[in-house]
Amino acid sequence: MAKIADTLQVDYDEFCGALAAKDLQPLWKINKQIMPQQPHPKTLPWLWNWSTLLPLAQRAGELITIDRGGDRRVLALCNPGLNGMPYTSTTLWGAVQYLAPGESAPAHRHTPGAIRFVMEGEGVWTTVNGDACDMTPGDLVLTPNWHWHDHTNAGDQPMVWFDGLDLPLVGWMESVFFELYPDNLQPIDARNGSERLYGRGTVPTDREEQSLHSPLLRYPYSEVSLQLDAMLEETGLEVTTLNYVNPINGHSALPTLGLEMTRIREGASTRPYRKAGSSIVVVFRGAGHSVIDGQRFDWSEHDIFVIPSWATVEHVASESSDLFVTTDRPVLQVLGLFREEYLEHPQKVTGTFEPR
Amino acid sequence: MAKIADTLQVDYDEFCGALAAKDLQPLWKINKQIMPQQPHPKTLPWLWNWSTLLPLAQRAGELITIDRGGDRRVLALCNPGLNGMPYTSTTLWGAVQYLAPGESAPAHRHTPGAIRFVMEGEGVWTTVNGDACDMTPGDLVLTPNWHWHDHTNAGDQPMVWFDGLDLPLVGWMESVFFELYPDNLQPIDARNGSERLYGRGTVPTDREEQSLHSPLLRYPYSEVSLQLDAMLEETGLEVTTLNYVNPINGHSALPTLGLEMTRIREGASTRPYRKAGSSIVVVFRGAGHSVIDGQRFDWSEHDIFVIPSWATVEHVASESSDLFVTTDRPVLQVLGLFREEYLEHPQKVTGTFEPR
Amino acid sequence: MAKIADTLQVDYDEFCGALAAKDLQPLWKINKQIMPQQPHPKTLPWLWNWSTLLPLAQRAGELITIDRGGDRRVLALCNPGLNGMPYTSTTLWGAVQYLAPGESAPAHRHTPGAIRFVMEGEGVWTTVNGDACDMTPGDLVLTPNWHWHDHTNAGDQPMVWFDGLDLPLVGWMESVFFELYPDNLQPIDARNGSERLYGRGTVPTDREEQSLHSPLLRYPYSEVSLQLDAMLEETGLEVTTLNYVNPINGHSALPTLGLEMTRIREGASTRPYRKAGSSIVVVFRGAGHSVIDGQRFDWSEHDIFVIPSWATVEHVASESSDLFVTTDRPVLQVLGLFREEYLEHPQKVTGTFEPR
Amino acid sequence: MAKIADTLQVDYDEFCGALAAKDLQPLWKINKQIMPQQPHPKTLPWLWNWSTLLPLAQRAGELITIDRGGDRRVLALCNPGLNGMPYTSTTLWGAVQYLAPGESAPAHRHTPGAIRFVMEGEGVWTTVNGDACDMTPGDLVLTPNWHWHDHTNAGDQPMVWFDGLDLPLVGWMESVFFELYPDNLQPIDARNGSERLYGRGTVPTDREEQSLHSPLLRYPYSEVSLQLDAMLEETGLEVTTLNYVNPINGHSALPTLGLEMTRIREGASTRPYRKAGSSIVVVFRGAGHSVIDGQRFDWSEHDIFVIPSWATVEHVASESSDLFVTTDRPVLQVLGLFREEYLEHPQKVTGTFEPR
Repeated sequence: MAKIADTLQVDYDEFCGALAAKDLQPLWKINKQIMPQQPHPKTLPWLWNWSTLLPLAQRAGELITIDRGGDRRVLALCNPGLNGMPYTSTTLWGAVQYLAPGESAPAHRHTPGAIRFVMEGEGVWTTVNGDACDMTPGDLVLTPNWHWHDHTNAGDQPMVWFDGLDLPLVGWMESVFFELYPDNLQPIDARNGSERLYGRGTVPTDREEQSLHSPLLRYPYSEVSLQLDAMLEETGLEVTTLNYVNPINGHSALPTLGLEMTRIREGASTRPYRKAGSSIVVVFRGAGHSVIDGQRFDWSEHDIFVIPSWATVEHVASESSDLFVTTDRPVLQVLGLFREEYLEHPQKVTGTFEPR
Repeated sequence: MAKIADTLQVDYDEFCGALAAKDLQPLWKINKQIMPQQPHPKTLPWLWNWSTLLPLAQRAGELITIDRGGDRRVLALCNPGLNGMPYTSTTLWGAVQYLAPGESAPAHRHTPGAIRFVMEGEGVWTTVNGDACDMTPGDLVLTPNWHWHDHTNAGDQPMVWFDGLDLPLVGWMESVFFELYPDNLQPIDARNGSERLYGRGTVPTDREEQSLHSPLLRYPYSEVSLQLDAMLEETGLEVTTLNYVNPINGHSALPTLGLEMTRIREGASTRPYRKAGSSIVVVFRGAGHSVIDGQRFDWSEHDIFVIPSWATVEHVASESSDLFVTTDRPVLQVLGLFREEYLEHPQKVTGTFEPR
Repeated sequence: MAKIADTLQVDYDEFCGALAAKDLQPLWKINKQIMPQQPHPKTLPWLWNWSTLLPLAQRAGELITIDRGGDRRVLALCNPGLNGMPYTSTTLWGAVQYLAPGESAPAHRHTPGAIRFVMEGEGVWTTVNGDACDMTPGDLVLTPNWHWHDHTNAGDQPMVWFDGLDLPLVGWMESVFFELYPDNLQPIDARNGSERLYGRGTVPTDREEQSLHSPLLRYPYSEVSLQLDAMLEETGLEVTTLNYVNPINGHSALPTLGLEMTRIREGASTRPYRKAGSSIVVVFRGAGHSVIDGQRFDWSEHDIFVIPSWATVEHVASESSDLFVTTDRPVLQVLGLFREEYLEHPQKVTGTFEPR
Repeated sequence: MAKIADTLQVDYDEFCGALAAKDLQPLWKINKQIMPQQPHPKTLPWLWNWSTLLPLAQRAGELITIDRGGDRRVLALCNPGLNGMPYTSTTLWGAVQYLAPGESAPAHRHTPGAIRFVMEGEGVWTTVNGDACDMTPGDLVLTPNWHWHDHTNAGDQPMVWFDGLDLPLVGWMESVFFELYPDNLQPIDARNGSERLYGRGTVPTDREEQSLHSPLLRYPYSEVSLQLDAMLEETGLEVTTLNYVNPINGHSALPTLGLEMTRIREGASTRPYRKAGSSIVVVFRGAGHSVIDGQRFDWSEHDIFVIPSWATVEHVASESSDLFVTTDRPVLQVLGLFREEYLEHPQKVTGTFEPR
């Protein structure tokens, strides 16, 4: 090994300066910050009220047209902890999208995967690779990685839906690709075709089986709700959760997003719990509150809130409630990073969140 | 290496005798038989007419009671090529089972996996590990490996269903276990519960995911039929096939049995085809004929026929037909033994099968 | 449902005759036999002594030439319980093969998968799809499903190896295909190539990953023996077992055969144990005895014995011993049929096996 | 749907202000930035010369002691494009670590997974969960997610190794956990134990099979080098690459890091290529240059450089060279985000990188 260069006989400060000049940083100055004993999320727990979101979405509908310049009328839920980045957590994009009667959002595709969860409205469909998927409240529609998609409101009332994307994660991996479709809208080959092709456990024999995303693109609320009833009845519990999965392999419907619906009976609550990874909760139905790391968040229908990584959370339903939850859990699981724990005692409430 | 024993200085015939005396056989005398260039199945193509099966099943209903001695009123379809063994092919057991109004077949379980495909009747359920699965014509009900099951006819007419089992294969592996339930019937915990718990792509979060058999136990014909319509429409073809799969992993609903429904439009036919492994075909609906290795088999509703390994087969539907097919394909696939090929030209018909 | 035919008003015996005439069998007459409470194997526990096998193999070497007619000089171990079928158990073929100096066994391929485990001799290689795999005592060489293989003895002494095949199982599935290579021997592309291409956890990036059989074709005893030493040392136990696996996916090296080596220290014994599925044990090194369902089987170097399904077995080593074991376990596991249990107490010995 | 609030009759600028006040951002102002047509990485291609790194590492050895405060003497390679964050790319941490004779780096564990690739020195081991893994130049040692690890230099010369971690990714997922071991060093249970327990395709039967990281912890260069020779010989090519994999399942040795060694013969070059995801290249042996998006980077032994996502790259070896490459590829693949392409023509060189 070469001898130590004499010219480096400088004191410690000079040495640190020499490191910086060579694009190097000493670990010993930053290790507590980058290797904390447990996560110190920048993501803050936060809540957006529907009473705020809806009028702003409607106002956007009046002020902003959808055309090839803008493409989508979307209000991104920006976590105040993330220094102005338009993300709801460090891994999840959450937003509300507004589509007025007669409008269409033009066709494009991108590597970030997306889900649409309908909050209000009727008469809209999203066309995904030629399959027009009808949207009614509570329905989930997937627009997986690199699938063409456009949205058409053929009804007489506006629709508002929740957009969930893995965009922050894909952006951080510097792997975002985007492409406009040659025409404004795709031709429609089928209507709710994926749903008709994937029954309860029966699948066409002529399909490729190894796709990472679900070939089933629409998960209607009408069926989800019946299933949640059956699950509550079968288990005799007060709370139950289902996953939206790929019927070909049982994995999450998208590889980058966990998608769940939790039903809580009136008056019931969930056990205190924390897990690695963040979640965005859309209150589809009901009212109640959640305690997140000791802070109380009151919610009612269509409010949206975010739970940071490793935050302790309990949900309490004052009315029978359905919570639609988008997470980064499949990513953490497949990388061996997921961990979770239930806590024995309910949290002490030390404050109440005041929405802006 | 030891020297050659002088006492073995015998001629070839004596040598072969010496081998036999020591429980050895010379490969060179049997290699053409045990290693043929392509399969020479003992399984013969064969057909059982419904017009024969039904009266015999009814007569069995008059003559044979179901009790703890007998357990099941089952007529096994015995392939004449198998030297009296009660099997339909070397890997598959096929049979018809008859259950009169008011009867119950008592609860038991066994390692061979079974399926029940309803041919005629109403008002019956099969209880599988406590879940009462209703049976109407065309429905498929699973009773997987080592699951308790009993059958109850609470209606006012007899039911006849097709039983498909992997019994020959499990028997050959000397791995059959069997157990009687302590009581005559299981208590019923749910009715069609598995069906209510597994929607289209949504699954409970609290279940074990790694089971080799499907948690969904009932596949109603009403849904299967709609899906076949959608598949014919989407592809624009004359023939389509769906698989009955495990909604948790997309594999065959049972690991030992392939389960398919093929719909053929009136006047259409399938391409000549052969594959490793055997199949039992139940004609659920329709009429037509199949050509198997040059022999014509005419069939109509509820007839049952068997196709041997590597036999070339074409189906021709004179009426719109639904063929329910049970195979050993998942076993061959998972062991790397499956092979198949389509042939270019229709077969020449060299004879017609005459049912006994 | 049609009415019962009056012409069937016959008594029970006539009815059974009517069934037989129509290729049907009543389950109630055979159910105890085909659905026993636990396996009643036809496979008998049996042992072939090396002192018998070797002279007969040598004698076969004198009497039988290897040519395109015969192909292989193989003595099959025929279980006396199997009615003359040339199989060691209902799923496994075991045999000894003898190749004299200067001889070659010509190239062919077949769908049954095979393994070769060298018992005695040097200077031989098996060429598998062009890769010449050297064979020395204790080495395992694979000839997977549908791989070309030939054997060449370029040394000056005969070799005897153990052949293990899944032939009974594949035969029962009526899926045996066989093909002669156009020439007597394959050209050799590499020597021990697969071994050089698959290091300890490092693999070429340009290979297909999904094969059901191992791309590694040779497992030398020299490495196996060192690993067994390390395993005994690390665990501090008296008995240890390793599996021969596919380095690409960790599954058994062949999908149809389980392949294991068990080392037992001098004076040690294994716990009483039984499992579904059968095993052929080649005593590679050492001496001792096994108790199988109460019967004592004494063994020494190069003896071969078979353990039936669900038989209780204990091995006792009077010298340090290496047992090479071939099983059907991967098949049972992948079909959900595998079960095993350890028993608390050593078996009572009720008799001793006397080799013929 | 509720009526639009009259109080929101403001113009567009006021509207945008209202959004910001409510933690919302309009997508139409940021969509081109967050959804570019192809990745616009912040990660810059960059190179650190060994002639710079080594003296600074040596100087750190003189100035900085290793104790419980600092733990590790590490110089992080900080990409100048990342605004001062101590990361080599947005997903990868690269660094050099210096351990003087007689020193030990104390035991800890963390959820980020790490690899150590030895550049210079002898006489060091890393103890991973009790298994002391010897380190010599070119060896790869894993310290997987949440495994205890400490480093001990028992030799008489300093060691420098390359550290590769998934820390940026895990940090972005807000899932970093860290824990100090109760003592300074772990007790040593085995020496190179994992290596002795995992032969070429033979594995202990008593291990859990489903771990996401490799049970094999050490991949010695001596074996890697022989395998690269065999691969070059077998393929007849000028360039070859092997992966470091988990011998239990053939996946990458760590789920979050791709680990490869590429050997390029003297005078040979690689085809122009680009892929999603970034790479850090350690020049273990040889000399040459790489062209990255038209810019030439000259390198010789022990230099380190980084390749951003979707950058086109060619390597040209003026001497026979071994490049050890750490990537995020397994993450992109498992999420369905990996894409790659080969380009037809060599790049035009438009500039040369001048190291600072």
